[in-house]
Amino acid sequence: MARSGGTRVRLGAGAEFDLIRALIGDAEPGPGVRVGPGDDCAVLEPSAAPWAITVDMSIEGVHFRRAWLTPEEIGWRAAAVALSDLAAIAAEPVAILLALALTDEDKRSGTAVALERGAAAAADAVGASIVGGDVTRTPGPLTIDVVALGRVPRPLLRSGARPGDELWVTGRLGAAGAAVAAWERAGTPAGPLRRAFAHPVPRVREALWLAETGAVHALVDLSDGLAGDAGHIAAASGCRMVVSAPAVPVAPGVAAAAGSEAEALRLALSAGDDYELCLAAEPGALGPVAADFEARFGIPLTRIGTVTAGEGVVLDRGDGSPPEPLAGGFTHFGGVGA
Amino acid sequence: MARSGGTRVRLGAGAEFDLIRALIGDAEPGPGVRVGPGDDCAVLEPSAAPWAITVDMSIEGVHFRRAWLTPEEIGWRAAAVALSDLAAIAAEPVAILLALALTDEDKRSGTAVALERGAAAAADAVGASIVGGDVTRTPGPLTIDVVALGRVPRPLLRSGARPGDELWVTGRLGAAGAAVAAWERAGTPAGPLRRAFAHPVPRVREALWLAETGAVHALVDLSDGLAGDAGHIAAASGCRMVVSAPAVPVAPGVAAAAGSEAEALRLALSAGDDYELCLAAEPGALGPVAADFEARFGIPLTRIGTVTAGEGVVLDRGDGSPPEPLAGGFTHFGGVGA
Repeated sequence: MARSGGTRVRLGAGAEFDLIRALIGDAEPGPGVRVGPGDDCAVLEPSAAPWAITVDMSIEGVHFRRAWLTPEEIGWRAAAVALSDLAAIAAEPVAILLALALTDEDKRSGTAVALERGAAAAADAVGASIVGGDVTRTPGPLTIDVVALGRVPRPLLRSGARPGDELWVTGRLGAAGAAVAAWERAGTPAGPLRRAFAHPVPRVREALWLAETGAVHALVDLSDGLAGDAGHIAAASGCRMVVSAPAVPVAPGVAAAAGSEAEALRLALSAGDDYELCLAAEPGALGPVAADFEARFGIPLTRIGTVTAGEGVVLDRGDGSPPEPLAGGFTHFGGVGA
Repeated sequence: MARSGGTRVRLGAGAEFDLIRALIGDAEPGPGVRVGPGDDCAVLEPSAAPWAITVDMSIEGVHFRRAWLTPEEIGWRAAAVALSDLAAIAAEPVAILLALALTDEDKRSGTAVALERGAAAAADAVGASIVGGDVTRTPGPLTIDVVALGRVPRPLLRSGARPGDELWVTGRLGAAGAAVAAWERAGTPAGPLRRAFAHPVPRVREALWLAETGAVHALVDLSDGLAGDAGHIAAASGCRMVVSAPAVPVAPGVAAAAGSEAEALRLALSAGDDYELCLAAEPGALGPVAADFEARFGIPLTRIGTVTAGEGVVLDRGDGSPPEPLAGGFTHFGGVGA
């Protein structure tokens, strides 16, 4: 990653600072960063664009289990979840801060360095760097808090959808939920399902490309499940989201893992943790460019429904039955952005 | 507090969003804030100045105990600690984000709303507002993570001290440490000592005023104790800090609570949690304005020593004995800024 001429700060003596030194290494601050880790604050260069900022807390036993993920995957996932919130407003990531609450065993075992390495890799993959953080002791559970900051010339909020818009999603849904379901049955998820949960890819470049089209009226990322997150657009925009069941792009392997097409659809609609994007767009605007999108990013852009007058999210099964209201999303009581 | 015309976002249905609604209320975004709580990110207006950003994690049983503080005080203190990091670089606070990990009992009992009220009061006291956050479930301990952002036209880092500089502190030291010592002896701290721990006041206006003098070469806040935090200036600047014991401004009531002048000095040097400022300044520059400072802010500005060539922090007892190395600061393994 390119390095600017920003400031590195030397730390005082002590075990805590030894750990912080191990975490931050000797890296020069990344682009856009005037002061990196080690002072009282990080300092970011001014930007002509507004700043987007979000914070996401990941807690062992609530958002992940150690038996499911390596420490490096836990760090990647915690950072990717925060960076996905930047994608969800069409921001260009610049920096993350990493606050870790570690047990004494974690401090001895090098867990912190692996967590940091995973978070740094997730940041680097979208052009950002770690600029600061905090390290503290906890009796447990392991807690990781990631702050993500980016420049956002044209924020795409949840509130811009209007009746007549088309509803679209990126990628394919349900794989992370199928992995969690397998683990909870004491099984072992297939590799691609496991990877969807352990290594989500924040759709940053995809969001910036979509914003460039000028056709996106409302944008959200899928952290709580399509039903819940489309519900955020519905509530913020004062509209109804009508999702067409046959159009929902279920990830490969989900039906086999879940045991039926119906259960696969349920996971795709409500299991959460996909970190794909859901958007309301100008009618007719994205259809002609969906193939370009897929060629460029290697994931599909799929129309899954329509925005109408009304409220909430309903599912149209396409079999002539009346649309049914979709219940809310993932209920771990977490994962809500800024 | 003045309100701008920023965006409020409506949230979807569900218990989690009911709680977030209770937390964020119907407030309009504060000045400098384009999008407040409720979307995937908060959005801050561009600034010609660089941005300072810091994150501080506060954990029950490590940084505070519920038996010591009310939920509102826990919220104030968590936010004040993060805002003190902004003061420590001479930034003007704009916004905080509040991430809460709550037990089921906390969710039922209204603890979250009290925590938020305390944090919002601390932010409001320095001209900032809550722009976002996260709410998640935890089996315990209660965990509060505060992100603070501010504009910093001229960052005052830890690294600018040079031999010949004078070492100064704001306020009086040791009161918070004496309160903790009293609680740990199962006693009850006197009101002013308790208040120093429960209700620290980030020295934001004081830092901006000191930065205006142009005489401050290095600045830090006292979170880990004078010995440890002056040690950060020493390490970052490549100098030695010589602290004159008789000059250290010990807070009233500390000696009585601690049982001796010697123990009071020990608390003032190493107990932490004072959230005063420590600075290295141009020789002769602050002496003439120290009375102005005290008249304006109601707290003293005290010269406590000198910066010399060398390294580390030493204590000069002023009795002709050789200077003694000061051990590190507070060892709770936390409280380190960005």
